[in-house]
Formats: sequence, structure tokens, C-alpha cells
Amino acid sequence: MLAVVFDGKTASLVEHPKPKCAKGEALIAVRAAGVCSTDLEILKGYMGFRGVMGHEFVGTVVEGPPSWVAKRVVGEINCVCGRCDMCTSGLSNHCRNRGVVGIDRRDGVFAEFVSMPVANLHVVPDGMDDTAAVFVEPLAAALQVLRQVRVEGAGVVVVIGDGRLGQLVARVMKLTGARCLLVGRYPAKLDAAEKQGIETVLAEAFVPAAKAGIVVEASGSPGGLELAMRTVRPRGTIVLKSTFAGGGPNLSPLVVNEVTVVGSRCGPFPDAIAALASGKIDVSALVACRFGLGGALEALEAAGKPENIKVLIDVQR
Amino acid sequence: MLAVVFDGKTASLVEHPKPKCAKGEALIAVRAAGVCSTDLEILKGYMGFRGVMGHEFVGTVVEGPPSWVAKRVVGEINCVCGRCDMCTSGLSNHCRNRGVVGIDRRDGVFAEFVSMPVANLHVVPDGMDDTAAVFVEPLAAALQVLRQVRVEGAGVVVVIGDGRLGQLVARVMKLTGARCLLVGRYPAKLDAAEKQGIETVLAEAFVPAAKAGIVVEASGSPGGLELAMRTVRPRGTIVLKSTFAGGGPNLSPLVVNEVTVVGSRCGPFPDAIAALASGKIDVSALVACRFGLGGALEALEAAGKPENIKVLIDVQR
Repeated sequence: MLAVVFDGKTASLVEHPKPKCAKGEALIAVRAAGVCSTDLEILKGYMGFRGVMGHEFVGTVVEGPPSWVAKRVVGEINCVCGRCDMCTSGLSNHCRNRGVVGIDRRDGVFAEFVSMPVANLHVVPDGMDDTAAVFVEPLAAALQVLRQVRVEGAGVVVVIGDGRLGQLVARVMKLTGARCLLVGRYPAKLDAAEKQGIETVLAEAFVPAAKAGIVVEASGSPGGLELAMRTVRPRGTIVLKSTFAGGGPNLSPLVVNEVTVVGSRCGPFPDAIAALASGKIDVSALVACRFGLGGALEALEAAGKPENIKVLIDVQR
Repeated sequence: MLAVVFDGKTASLVEHPKPKCAKGEALIAVRAAGVCSTDLEILKGYMGFRGVMGHEFVGTVVEGPPSWVAKRVVGEINCVCGRCDMCTSGLSNHCRNRGVVGIDRRDGVFAEFVSMPVANLHVVPDGMDDTAAVFVEPLAAALQVLRQVRVEGAGVVVVIGDGRLGQLVARVMKLTGARCLLVGRYPAKLDAAEKQGIETVLAEAFVPAAKAGIVVEASGSPGGLELAMRTVRPRGTIVLKSTFAGGGPNLSPLVVNEVTVVGSRCGPFPDAIAALASGKIDVSALVACRFGLGGALEALEAAGKPENIKVLIDVQR
């Protein structure tokens, strides 16, 4: 099959063995996939990953337990052991022995086929198109914030970063009824959020005032965390959604202002499916461009350009 | 009066005007003072402080409201406005307009006299000696951890850093009944903790296993936070007690493991006074050496040597 494989140095579009469908797994024909900032980090060496890239997808089960075959599905990316202390304490996303699809010791979805545990799969409702379905994984990650911090009563929520993740987090915050302010660097990206009724401000015009109860850092840069520390009020909370290479900023303000920082990663798929299926979250305006699997390397390149919010790969077209 | 004054470049022992006792304040004859790591940071430029250094002390009120005169007191270091959003929401330690004794726009206690708001003062019980009283402020800071995180049920609490603050935090943790492990670099310092029944381990022999529910970073180094991130379990909590100059480590592990970081600063004086007065916390073994006010500069130098846990300045002797 055709697949985007990263060998530790470069990503190539190559013929790759079709995955075998192991016990408890389903073989899925990928329909469409999304490019995430984590994919771009992997190209820089993040997690030391080798193999088929990609983790955001929608596909059709072509082999596996009969009740799953022919179902259109999305899949959670943490493939877990079910036996370690994390799994048995309800924190299986933090399984000590996990593989993570396209990120850590598991082949990913920038390919014609992927094999995944059926325990990870969720059926996509009929009314939801493939484009929306690709957003289930990143939207779940955005929704995770609501599981970790109490937005109610926190006053203004400031989201730093107008990229893929920041856009989704801002939409999630707006959904809660919180007043949300999205801080970004790109007028066109801020426009996309404004059209959803989200208040926005250009970073160069934003004056941090140490007043926000919650700040979500989704910019993926040390400068974003620095800005978050100047934006959050004393005893407030910074949610750290994005990782970045290299050292972080000086953290003394966290101590002086007794700020809480909450690291946040993967989230609840059912909530994301429900929010997309009901139309409460509209992601259509976030897609900047689409490529076929043959153009997957161009898709990765396009995703690295700041003017593009989301880049999709239509594997079947 | 004689005072240790920092001019932005060097600390000098000089004749300095005796402070005036403003309305609502008390003039205090300092009896003894303690050197804190923050004092050493101030010598490096922290907070851009200028003036009389020092903030840990015990003294006798010599002028002010009659009910306070002749009382032996310790004092909270945040001098607050009482009117800003922080003060009126019960977070006066984070007052927007605060001065902080010996740290931020308020003269400190390495001097014969200091003037402080009477609202900041606490009477020292008769049975408590001056040495213990000097530890009220740093012990309160250590006790603050208990106000911010739930130690009960967290399993082993790992304290990183065997210096002044780490020693106090470890004693506080032991007091809660939690199993506490103190990680440090200096056998003599770890011995002092062992004598209080605290389990210790040398940093070079410590193998972080991502299992601790709570890790308190009190080492004051970026390496300490790095070690904390490898020691805390996924979804666990790192309490950040100490500040350090320069950039921090890469924070991706916080996101991947959804760790919570809680910045922690000043704490409850009454709790600290009670713990010292009852003998539940014994600090006598922590004092490495004592100097008179005439030897205050030597005291600062001695406090910078890693083998010395606590250095005191006996202003009256």
C-alpha cells in the first residue's frame, strides 16, 4: 500500500506493507486524514518516531470483528495494555506501555490502511461528513480542557494561538457560554474565529493585564507561555495544550503569582462526535486545503505554513 | 541605625536612617533575622530591589499602637492596599499594589529597626525562642503547600532539594502522615532530615519512576524541575516552591503526562507558629551558623555555601 513513512530524517511517500489485522483489532481503509502540529514536530524528531505518520483520520473497517466491518469509524490514538497501574486506575490514556498511532511505536494513518484496536474505535454518525469526522480527534483534545478546569465562574478565558488547536479550543470555550478571547498573529485566522462569534485580538495589540482566570496556551511557542503568564491572574490557571521543542521561559511568575499550570493532551471522543454531529461546533471554515494521498508530502509542507489552519489528506478520492 | 543595604550592585553594611513609624504601623527592634535564598537572588538582581535587605525576622515592638508596644513579634512580608481586586477577593498576598519587606519596594529586616503594618504582625508565644521564631516565615511558606494540594491519598510525596526550603517542606509533609522522600545533593543535609525521621536519598542514587502523586520542587534549579517531571506520575502534581534565574526546561512532559504544576509562595503564619510552639516541627538542627549584625555580609556569604542549611543574624546580642 502507499504510505507516508518517516525514517528519522525525512518523510517519504513509499510502498509499505499493508498492516496485518491482529486479534482484537480492525483493519481500516483510511478515507481522509488531518495534519496536526504534532506531525510537524515528528518531522523535527519529536518522540523519536519511525514509521507511518499521522493520527487524525476517518476510515471504513474492511476486516475484523463482523459487527465492525463496513462501519465508518474514527479512532482514539492511545493503544493501551489494560493491565498497568494507569490502565487499572482509569487513566488508560496514560498507559505505561502504550503505543500511540503515528506518534509512538504504532504505524499511523497517512496510508491506505491502518490497523487499530476495536476498543479504540467510534462509529461516525451517518449525517457527519468525512471532513467533520477528521476533526473528532483534535476536537476531543480541545474538549479535554473542560474535563480538567472549571470554566464556569472563571471570567474571561484567553486562548493564545490562532492555529489548528487554538481555533478548536476557542470554539469549545464559546460553547460553554464563557467569554473567550482568542489572541493570534494572523488576521485571516482571527477572521475565521470572528465568523463563529469569537472575540479576537492581534497579539501585537493585546495588552496582558494579569486578570484572566483561565488562559489556554495553544501557540506551541515559549513566547506563548510567557504571554500566558502575564495574562493570567494571580491564583489563576494556565492550560498547556501544545508542546514545543527546546527550553521554556523562566517560570518564576508561576511561583510569585501562585499560578496553576495544567498539562492537557487527548480528550473524550464521544463528546467531540456529539458536538460535531449536532453542528454545535462548525469546523468547515478551518480547512485551508486538501490533497490526495499522492500529495501527502505537499500536505505536510502546506500545514507548516502559518496562513493555513487545517490541511486534509483525502486518501480515497 | 546599622543596616544591610543593596544598591542594585552590592550589599553594604551602612548607617541608614531609622525608619519612621507610619500610621497603622509598628516600629520594631529586630532581634534576629534569617537569610533566605530569595535574599541571595536579590543580590543577583531579582525583583530589581533596592534598599534594606531581609524579610525573615523576630523583633520587639518599640513604637506604635500601645497594645503592641513591647510585644515580641514576627511579621508577614506582604504589605497590602486592602482595596484592589485581589485584596477584596481574599487573596491579599497577591495585592496588586503590594510592597514586600526586603524584596519589593519595602525596607527589610537586616537592620536594627524595621517599620511594618500592625496588620502583618503576629505575637510570638513566650515559650518559643528567637531561633524558632525566625523560622515562622519560611515554615509558613512550606505549610502553604498543604493549602494548595491534597496530600492525603497521593502516595509518596517526593521533595526535591535538601536546602532551607526543602528541609522545611519535608518536615511539613512528614507531619501530615504522608510518606515523604527527600532528594538532595549533600549527605550532611540529608542527615539532618534523617534525624527527623524523614526518608532521604542522594540525587545521584535516585531513580525517577514517574510514580509519585506529588513532587515538591524546592531545589531552585532548572534541573530540579526536570527531575520533578520524571518523578511525578501522569496526572500527578508538581508544586513549584522555588524560583530560579534564566530559562526553564522543556515542558512537553507536562502536556504528555497531563501534569498539574502549582506555584506556591507565602503561607499561613498562625499555622507555622502553632507547629513550632508545639514542637511538632523542630528546626534547631537546621541552623548552620550565626553572625551579629556587624557580620551580616559574612552571613550572606555563608548562606551561599551549599553545606550551610540556615544562617541567622543575631541583630541584638
